Amino acid sequence: MAPHAEVAAVTDTSSVVVPDPILTKGDTHAKFTFDDVLPHRQQSEPVSTIVAAFSSAHMFKSKKSANKPKARKWDQHFSMESRSRQPSSLKGAMKYFKKDTISLCGGLPSPDYFPFQEVGAKLPVAPHFSQDELAETAQPFSAGKFDTLSGDSTYDLQIALNYGQSMGPGAVLRFITEHTEAVHNPPYSDWDICMSAGSTSALDISLRMFLERGHYVITEEYTFSSAIETVLPIGAKMLGIKMDAHGMLPDDLDHVLSTWDEKARNAPKPFLVYTVPTGQNPTASTQPLQRRKDIYALAEKHNLFILEDEPYFFLQMETFVSGQTHSVEKPFKPAPVKDFLSNLIPSYLSLDTSGRVLRLDSFSKIIAPGSRTGWVTGPSQVIERFLRHAEVSAQTPSGFSLITLYKLLEENWGHKGFLEWLMFIRAEYTRRRDIIVNACERYLPAEVASWSPPMAGMFHWIKLDITKHPLYAPGEMGLQKILDIEHSAFAALADMSVLCAKGSWFRAERGSDTELFLRLTFAAAAPDKMVQAVEKMGFALRREFGLEQVALEHTQNGHTNGHAK
Amino acid sequence: MAPHAEVAAVTDTSSVVVPDPILTKGDTHAKFTFDDVLPHRQQSEPVSTIVAAFSSAHMFKSKKSANKPKARKWDQHFSMESRSRQPSSLKGAMKYFKKDTISLCGGLPSPDYFPFQEVGAKLPVAPHFSQDELAETAQPFSAGKFDTLSGDSTYDLQIALNYGQSMGPGAVLRFITEHTEAVHNPPYSDWDICMSAGSTSALDISLRMFLERGHYVITEEYTFSSAIETVLPIGAKMLGIKMDAHGMLPDDLDHVLSTWDEKARNAPKPFLVYTVPTGQNPTASTQPLQRRKDIYALAEKHNLFILEDEPYFFLQMETFVSGQTHSVEKPFKPAPVKDFLSNLIPSYLSLDTSGRVLRLDSFSKIIAPGSRTGWVTGPSQVIERFLRHAEVSAQTPSGFSLITLYKLLEENWGHKGFLEWLMFIRAEYTRRRDIIVNACERYLPAEVASWSPPMAGMFHWIKLDITKHPLYAPGEMGLQKILDIEHSAFAALADMSVLCAKGSWFRAERGSDTELFLRLTFAAAAPDKMVQAVEKMGFALRREFGLEQVALEHTQNGHTNGHAK
Repeated sequence: MAPHAEVAAVTDTSSVVVPDPILTKGDTHAKFTFDDVLPHRQQSEPVSTIVAAFSSAHMFKSKKSANKPKARKWDQHFSMESRSRQPSSLKGAMKYFKKDTISLCGGLPSPDYFPFQEVGAKLPVAPHFSQDELAETAQPFSAGKFDTLSGDSTYDLQIALNYGQSMGPGAVLRFITEHTEAVHNPPYSDWDICMSAGSTSALDISLRMFLERGHYVITEEYTFSSAIETVLPIGAKMLGIKMDAHGMLPDDLDHVLSTWDEKARNAPKPFLVYTVPTGQNPTASTQPLQRRKDIYALAEKHNLFILEDEPYFFLQMETFVSGQTHSVEKPFKPAPVKDFLSNLIPSYLSLDTSGRVLRLDSFSKIIAPGSRTGWVTGPSQVIERFLRHAEVSAQTPSGFSLITLYKLLEENWGHKGFLEWLMFIRAEYTRRRDIIVNACERYLPAEVASWSPPMAGMFHWIKLDITKHPLYAPGEMGLQKILDIEHSAFAALADMSVLCAKGSWFRAERGSDTELFLRLTFAAAAPDKMVQAVEKMGFALRREFGLEQVALEHTQNGHTNGHAK
Repeated sequence: MAPHAEVAAVTDTSSVVVPDPILTKGDTHAKFTFDDVLPHRQQSEPVSTIVAAFSSAHMFKSKKSANKPKARKWDQHFSMESRSRQPSSLKGAMKYFKKDTISLCGGLPSPDYFPFQEVGAKLPVAPHFSQDELAETAQPFSAGKFDTLSGDSTYDLQIALNYGQSMGPGAVLRFITEHTEAVHNPPYSDWDICMSAGSTSALDISLRMFLERGHYVITEEYTFSSAIETVLPIGAKMLGIKMDAHGMLPDDLDHVLSTWDEKARNAPKPFLVYTVPTGQNPTASTQPLQRRKDIYALAEKHNLFILEDEPYFFLQMETFVSGQTHSVEKPFKPAPVKDFLSNLIPSYLSLDTSGRVLRLDSFSKIIAPGSRTGWVTGPSQVIERFLRHAEVSAQTPSGFSLITLYKLLEENWGHKGFLEWLMFIRAEYTRRRDIIVNACERYLPAEVASWSPPMAGMFHWIKLDITKHPLYAPGEMGLQKILDIEHSAFAALADMSVLCAKGSWFRAERGSDTELFLRLTFAAAAPDKMVQAVEKMGFALRREFGLEQVALEHTQNGHTNGHAK
């Protein structure tokens, strides 16, 4: 086993990097903060290092949490499928497990037959996060089969590479529980956490927990295409609520629910809301705190349950200023954790006095999509049903993901380093946002293209004025005509070697399009390529809409150098 | 990036370890063998190294495969849910991707924001597989972010840690396709493969592909408890076919189907068969070739579709000889690959002339459960529907699993090394099987306990004669009484610190128990612990059944040393 570079001796109760005094102090009487992590661990039971040990967020959350009221019960709202789930017989046998028990029960292979002597990774030391620094300063971490036996660690390959309980291994669940409590401070006591094999899997499970065929799911007018593609085969329907740059409109939500006619709709009044409150996919809309409060109040009024899908929560940005690009200091200098956290718009989870929110967190956008690892937080009754389905589907995230995340988060970064990493990628995404929006201002034809600069996330949502398109014919704009125009614009860009996403893919009520949108991401391409692509887009859109042409400045297709018409 | 120890320079078409002449020759005109892998690769297109590239087994299978007949079509048999699945809009956009395209389409994060400079593992060099040798001879392998750009590899972190297509990355799918074709040689042309996030996830997806509420799934009388727990919440029912030590009885299967009464059963004639043909869980029964042929013939007669769940396929063992324990040579000496393969009972996939089998393979029992990685093989029409569900559930196996498996299988072992590993663990499980069965012969009371020695897998299935139990009352043996006796025996063992699994957990038609069984695994505990546990079981069962007691020989509870009564 390689040494734990830079980290103080890892013991069970102090393996997290020691919190720094710059961590948020907050109101320590009322709220668990990152400063409380270490003292809390020292007063708590150690993490179990038995293979496939049961654990729960209840083991790791603060004592402060216990005094809060309990969540509501949702018995009447679980689907037939979810209600009929029984606990796993084999996993239930674990309660007979004593210290000296020899188990001939579960078919857990001996670790002798895992062909891995060690797995490891070279990991960045906070705050040296940039690619240039990474090559110079990344430190090796490794996990052996039996690190827990020697007391070197709370998690090793014999645990990570065997079967495990679906809520996740205690060593990782503890870190996630502490993070979740210190960031979101759920206002009820019996919240719990289950790890997920990514939020796509978590969404599939969550939907099946509540939906019957014919039910409606409320969401934004435009929503994550993959969510639509998950809901429809289950036999449920998407119901799109009107939105602005601040997300779903409470008035429309209230109107739809207040006027719900079960007979006319042939469906019960909706119960489930699916929303991406921050940097929404595809529109990049971000709900301000008051909007969230208004929607939560409507959830109370109409008895709704909210699926809060928040992959972009930590990618909240400073306001875009035209012509400016926020730079990322080299070397990157993190802000105080307290300032970072206090500038984030609070989550639904943090407003959830009744226990009517299931929050979906994901490592995909903040660590790596290939980790296929996330977690869900919500009332323990709902988490228990979630767990039952996880046991007979994805089971758990990969042990290779879990051991690597453990080494990264618990043994290398600690909570402070993780938050500094989040500040770093937020700064990088802000810089990229600035670059793409500036490029759009410069190159896209203002006569037909408009947008609100994104305040979070990875996406930029461009409205094209369909009435300006040569094929536009007032009074004859059926769906097919709109989709034809959209495809024509999409293909014009593809011809110029620029791929973007069609707005219609994200239309919650598929086939109800009346307007024209394109979604761009600023997450993927290199900054110079993004600018080049937007310039080509401008060229293609001018041609597509029959506007006066502007020659390309920078690409091989352009022959002049100026911005001449 | 660490050097590729022991392996010839890795290039795209020759990165697999060069096959050795001892590999099976077979009939090279008719069948693709491991000897054909390298020449086939040299004549084929290279693996794509674009992030999230589409791939398919059709890209990697042999030309020989193309001349076979096509699989049947199953349009009428897909469930409502499965039929309504549409391809992912965003993934469909990839067809517009050209060499010089700049994609602003999918929200794939830049690899600059994956905080991993490198991941790696220390891996055993074939055939030095034992724990002792591993510590001495394991070689380091590592993957960097951009190994494919330098041509050092066909798979790297920028691909593995980003989003990917659900069939799996080409670099891994190619290895799996070659393995599957050389081992199983499916007798139709249009078979395809989709990777899975483990067979538990694959089973959940497969069942939803074909089942409606109220339908029946045919299986063995006793079957994998997790399969039962997956089927029931979907609203389907398990139908258990009588079995012997060779698995499901064809006569009973034929009888049930031939006499099916839709009205009386309130369900259509069953279409889906779920079976574990080799080392069945829990009974360890293994279907001989003729049994498989008979069942396949009935599938043809009654138009059944077979889910072949085969985690233990390579754990087929030599016959148990009482008093003997097969030893594993030190150092382990693998047999010729040809001999190993020719001694395996052929799979249903290899008998599947009509394309009515979906085979579930898993790395859980042969590499590590924590990999949460497997694959399914079947008719391309079925694989396409599977893929559509995978896209909106687990998506793909973890990239950390995939890159580690790639390093292990493709860059370290190659096909030959992988097969030698399978021989090694088969030998180890055979040794463990011998130890537990010998211990049972020695310590369990023959008056009440009986069994057939397992021929494959990880489990040993013990029948207890319920009529000998003190609580047995002829004519009054309702279900509750049987479960009470079972629990009493289970608890008697748990009191002696031995955990085993109750037979009733595996009863396909839950609550129809008439007999008493216990399932033991020989996979988990150390051999001396297994023997100790079986001795304690003998003690506990004698007490439980009121038999003359034999003192314990070896444990702390035993005071005498002999085998005295």
